[in-house]
Amino acid sequence: MRAGGGTEVLDKAAAACILTLCFGCLHVIALKSQLFTRHGGLPYSTEAPISYETFYFDQKIDHFGFLENGTFKQRYLVADKHWKPGGPVLFYTGNEGDITWFCNNTGFMWEIAEELGAMLVFAEHRYYGESLPFGQDSYSDSKHLNYLTSEQALADFAVLIQNLKSTLQGAQHSPVIAIGGSYGGMLSAWFRMKYPNIVVGALAASAPIWQFPGMVPCGDFYKIVTQDFARSGSNCDANIRKSWKAINNVSSTGSGLQWLSEEFSLCTPLKSVIDVINFKNWLQETWVNLAMVDYPYEANFLQPLPPWPIQVVCKYLGFDSTVSDHQLLHGVSQAARIYYNYTGGSSCLNTSQTATGSLGFLGWFYQACTEMVMPMCTDGVQDMFEPSEWNFQAFSDECYGMFGVRPRADWAGIVYGGKDIASHSNIIFSNGGLDPWSAGGVTYNITDSLVSIVIPEGAHHLDLRYSNARDPASVRAARALEVKYFREWIRKAKKTP
Amino acid sequence: MRAGGGTEVLDKAAAACILTLCFGCLHVIALKSQLFTRHGGLPYSTEAPISYETFYFDQKIDHFGFLENGTFKQRYLVADKHWKPGGPVLFYTGNEGDITWFCNNTGFMWEIAEELGAMLVFAEHRYYGESLPFGQDSYSDSKHLNYLTSEQALADFAVLIQNLKSTLQGAQHSPVIAIGGSYGGMLSAWFRMKYPNIVVGALAASAPIWQFPGMVPCGDFYKIVTQDFARSGSNCDANIRKSWKAINNVSSTGSGLQWLSEEFSLCTPLKSVIDVINFKNWLQETWVNLAMVDYPYEANFLQPLPPWPIQVVCKYLGFDSTVSDHQLLHGVSQAARIYYNYTGGSSCLNTSQTATGSLGFLGWFYQACTEMVMPMCTDGVQDMFEPSEWNFQAFSDECYGMFGVRPRADWAGIVYGGKDIASHSNIIFSNGGLDPWSAGGVTYNITDSLVSIVIPEGAHHLDLRYSNARDPASVRAARALEVKYFREWIRKAKKTP
Repeated sequence: MRAGGGTEVLDKAAAACILTLCFGCLHVIALKSQLFTRHGGLPYSTEAPISYETFYFDQKIDHFGFLENGTFKQRYLVADKHWKPGGPVLFYTGNEGDITWFCNNTGFMWEIAEELGAMLVFAEHRYYGESLPFGQDSYSDSKHLNYLTSEQALADFAVLIQNLKSTLQGAQHSPVIAIGGSYGGMLSAWFRMKYPNIVVGALAASAPIWQFPGMVPCGDFYKIVTQDFARSGSNCDANIRKSWKAINNVSSTGSGLQWLSEEFSLCTPLKSVIDVINFKNWLQETWVNLAMVDYPYEANFLQPLPPWPIQVVCKYLGFDSTVSDHQLLHGVSQAARIYYNYTGGSSCLNTSQTATGSLGFLGWFYQACTEMVMPMCTDGVQDMFEPSEWNFQAFSDECYGMFGVRPRADWAGIVYGGKDIASHSNIIFSNGGLDPWSAGGVTYNITDSLVSIVIPEGAHHLDLRYSNARDPASVRAARALEVKYFREWIRKAKKTP
Repeated sequence: MRAGGGTEVLDKAAAACILTLCFGCLHVIALKSQLFTRHGGLPYSTEAPISYETFYFDQKIDHFGFLENGTFKQRYLVADKHWKPGGPVLFYTGNEGDITWFCNNTGFMWEIAEELGAMLVFAEHRYYGESLPFGQDSYSDSKHLNYLTSEQALADFAVLIQNLKSTLQGAQHSPVIAIGGSYGGMLSAWFRMKYPNIVVGALAASAPIWQFPGMVPCGDFYKIVTQDFARSGSNCDANIRKSWKAINNVSSTGSGLQWLSEEFSLCTPLKSVIDVINFKNWLQETWVNLAMVDYPYEANFLQPLPPWPIQVVCKYLGFDSTVSDHQLLHGVSQAARIYYNYTGGSSCLNTSQTATGSLGFLGWFYQACTEMVMPMCTDGVQDMFEPSEWNFQAFSDECYGMFGVRPRADWAGIVYGGKDIASHSNIIFSNGGLDPWSAGGVTYNITDSLVSIVIPEGAHHLDLRYSNARDPASVRAARALEVKYFREWIRKAKKTP
């Protein structure tokens, strides 16, 4: 699960680097479906069963060179139950995982399809799910991974849409709106920026397009995670901050390692210093993931979890200052079980995994090691984590060790504009106040048509999820505003000859 | 000179395809300069000697993949005599040839540098001039040619500018304006579209961004060539239209071939049917080139030529209908000599060359065989050429034979927006009414900030040339308006924090 597991030098800096990659955990569950109907709704949800058809489109493996002329099958899902010829297309710009998973976790699109008379299309990102450019060899080496870039993915989307418009009867003049969350949201924003001829606008939900070098402070991400815990229970952040030293203390002896392993019911007992570093990284990722999915209702996104899971977790972390290391870590262990064993099905905790499934994980590592350079750091003061500076060189060396490639720190800023994006138009950036990724998001209006919607009580792209009786008013308002913008873009597109 | 020379099947259709490539002739002369001063001004020109410094920047060979991590030296020229810190940068987006040649043929930039307090930068396009990604091997095979694309070239420009801004004292906040002519003008327009974070605006002079499949009628280009000849002398276009049949008649015998070869003083006598096809293509390119450089004053762009060269050429083509094939072809031969031997230095005419120099020629062939698919056709009625349909398949097959690659007909339209570019801003499209490339140009205002300037008496990017006492009023007005837009973009950029 953690990129550095196979590298020799795994110092604190590198460990911090690895954590930046956990963005990639947002995905997976290999659902196979031809005509798939989702069952088993979540409580309080208004969701109805969804159905779509699955198609495969022949995409060029390389849009930016002509030597490699091969193609692969890009999977995409289409639901046109409510669509009328000429009506809009809502196009999900798939991110780093199985597209059916995103399809099932983007209830917002399903809920608005009827009122907009819209066709829904969910396009899978190359190298994820079933859309593998070289089949089983796609991840075999850096040569085969060479076409895994956001630019290629955007070109896939553009070519696919052009094809749909020219082949689907009645779709030729259909305005297309890009929608995506997280990395998919970055893609939807960038898609509108780079291909405004293809999409009339974009909803970029929880899209940290500024989480790149020099754009936002590297510590903001973990500050938000910390704030989520601080506000969810008394002493909660302070005890997590103390827990790292407690782990270091306890793990300094063999018996301590054994105690830790048993206390946390670890599937693989801790044996070495490296194991302890990995263990701490795993815990850190756990807290980060909880911050991302701190939804107000029972949900199963990264893991099955109760409503407001951080509040539940923090019930085990309310100790005052007199607690012993072992007592503190017992609390941490109970807290971690909320995340990993809420449904009671796990016989042991697996420190090599922090979220459901594994597909797509290596792909995101590769992307982080090439274009998606997202600096993160902690200081242990403004956040609840062990201090760790952002160390680009260590990160780069680790990437080189893993993939034989080095990240290009400045490239994303150059190609996607960084903070100089005011000349673009028709992009909604929505962000949740609880979501650590909002640190790298656009949280203010840039222009009249590059607008920000902040959902103070929202975690990671809450607005894209199905509506729920427990939804805060802010996310209801956000969704209504988003639809209002969609209608405006559609109206203007239809007026244009 | 002609792409099809080495292919086995060179039918009429393929011959027409080949002609589309002659856009690539716009370039060359391998000038070496460290601190280069241009001598020998043209008559009536106000031009002053120019001086610049030559630099080389380490560019990634592949911006869109991470496996190929090599770099090459991109050449660029800088003239900062009039620049003050914070002042604007006028950035020439180099096209398919030696950058010093474009530098010397873009007097407009040199003439406005002082009034704008601007730095001039001329950036060489990869694979041309000295900017060879793999040195002498750059053209050795399609593997080495794989990084010759407009997207890579635009990325080069973006990375170079970001580097200049971060390393040149006082340039950090300098607004940069892209300027280019012909393919370089297409690049400048696309540069603003794709990297509005890097350039505040663009002047795209004589840039046929719509000369792509499905955007403009394929016959318009040759219609304009024909109109230029029709208005430059009585019966001029009609006699050229007749000349093809005369050539076919005369060349049907061995003695006729010999007569033709001698009449035209060909360096290599005509021997076969293929030779005759090549000969006609060469003549057709000659007329096209004359249309492109039909300037009102003596100039040396593709060849040294008199003022209004088509008028001079047409003096030999004013026959009425009673003339014999041999008489007609004698006139054609005299006319061709105006283009190829105005200065009297040629002992024979070389049908494998239609413009000065040869560097960059193969590169443009490759580009035409990949992204730059520009349909052309003739019907012999609305134009003065032998009828020839646009045949994409024949063109594609020829490309495959030459380079092992196939052109992607739709790609340019998808990636650069085709006719759906209204959401972009700050681009001036200037076009000359005499220039056949205006057929594929933007000749009407798309929005308030995507504007067209038409210069009725102008040939190929006349506005970019040095001012001249014989300049028509329309080009003077065009240049003044261009500078006005520049000032506006600069003013607005300075107001933005």
